[in-house]
Amino acid sequence: MSETLARKPGRPRDPTIDRKVLDATRELLVEKGLEAATVQAIAERSGVHASAIYRRWSSRLDILEEAVFPGPTIVLVEPTGDLKRDIRRFVRTYLAVFGAPAARAAVPGLLASYQSNGRSDVPEKWMVVSARPQFAEILRRARSGVDPKVDAEDVFDVLLGAVLARALVPTVIERRRPVERLVELTLRMLRPGPEEQS
Amino acid sequence: MSETLARKPGRPRDPTIDRKVLDATRELLVEKGLEAATVQAIAERSGVHASAIYRRWSSRLDILEEAVFPGPTIVLVEPTGDLKRDIRRFVRTYLAVFGAPAARAAVPGLLASYQSNGRSDVPEKWMVVSARPQFAEILRRARSGVDPKVDAEDVFDVLLGAVLARALVPTVIERRRPVERLVELTLRMLRPGPEEQS
Repeated sequence: MSETLARKPGRPRDPTIDRKVLDATRELLVEKGLEAATVQAIAERSGVHASAIYRRWSSRLDILEEAVFPGPTIVLVEPTGDLKRDIRRFVRTYLAVFGAPAARAAVPGLLASYQSNGRSDVPEKWMVVSARPQFAEILRRARSGVDPKVDAEDVFDVLLGAVLARALVPTVIERRRPVERLVELTLRMLRPGPEEQS
Repeated sequence: MSETLARKPGRPRDPTIDRKVLDATRELLVEKGLEAATVQAIAERSGVHASAIYRRWSSRLDILEEAVFPGPTIVLVEPTGDLKRDIRRFVRTYLAVFGAPAARAAVPGLLASYQSNGRSDVPEKWMVVSARPQFAEILRRARSGVDPKVDAEDVFDVLLGAVLARALVPTVIERRRPVERLVELTLRMLRPGPEEQS
């Protein structure tokens, strides 16, 4: 993350300040919820002055997003051709991102503010730019287990929904072995099967 | 809905007032978004005084929920034994509920407020009390197409996620033929198949 932010023209940046702010934001989200994570509260907890925070992030929303969602390097799944293995890594990665306590606290509020601000591109950005193509690449490279008739985009949408539901819906959150459950159902959606009974 | 509300002790209720308030709430949600749908704004648009509104609903959240989610009779899907047909009706019903413009405007904000208020039971209530057992009943009654090894609860969770994603995530909302896409993937998750390759 810091690479993309450190090169702003003008002033050299102190990465420890970024980290302090983002850590404080996550702590506030987990301990007190989204409403409590104001710039003022973040400033107080991190010991970084609000004016220094605004020099780094253009809005509270930007801070929250960066605190909650990691940079792209963390979520890159390089396909191996082994479908089950690749899907498992993919599912585990995204469940971990959305299932982290700070993300759970922030996601519904972020969705609400996108809705009211018309920032319609954002949820896609959350899965980090490469998630949809990455999923398609996993299927393309798979040596077996993928029905050519299945629409990979549809399966991705359903998977995204399942991951979101796990972050948002308490009855879903509570279920155990989330990775294996979701891997199993994803493989079921993808696999070639007997001709469908109608 | 009105049956469950009309029997409060004390005063007979005028159902046209309920309808005016709920209609006004939906209009505000669609036209101006969740933030704008305050009790005061609802009172102004509906022509029903705020005190009369508070006599009927205990909070703004209660009004919003009732405006957005219909009563149980609307979403009862009686299984016929024809899996594809029953799943299609089930999916169509829930996509319609969550995909309605007023629901789309309200859902993220409602989720956010549940999260911050710790009202963890609510998203289940949204699917209307009977949705999860109803889904299980559809599978139980199906004459074919259901692998006994599949976990119906897991499939329901994924379906719930897919429906939510369609209400919340713009790239998912835009895709066409949502009912058929989701029916197809649900049947894929459920069907008995060849032994899994690992």
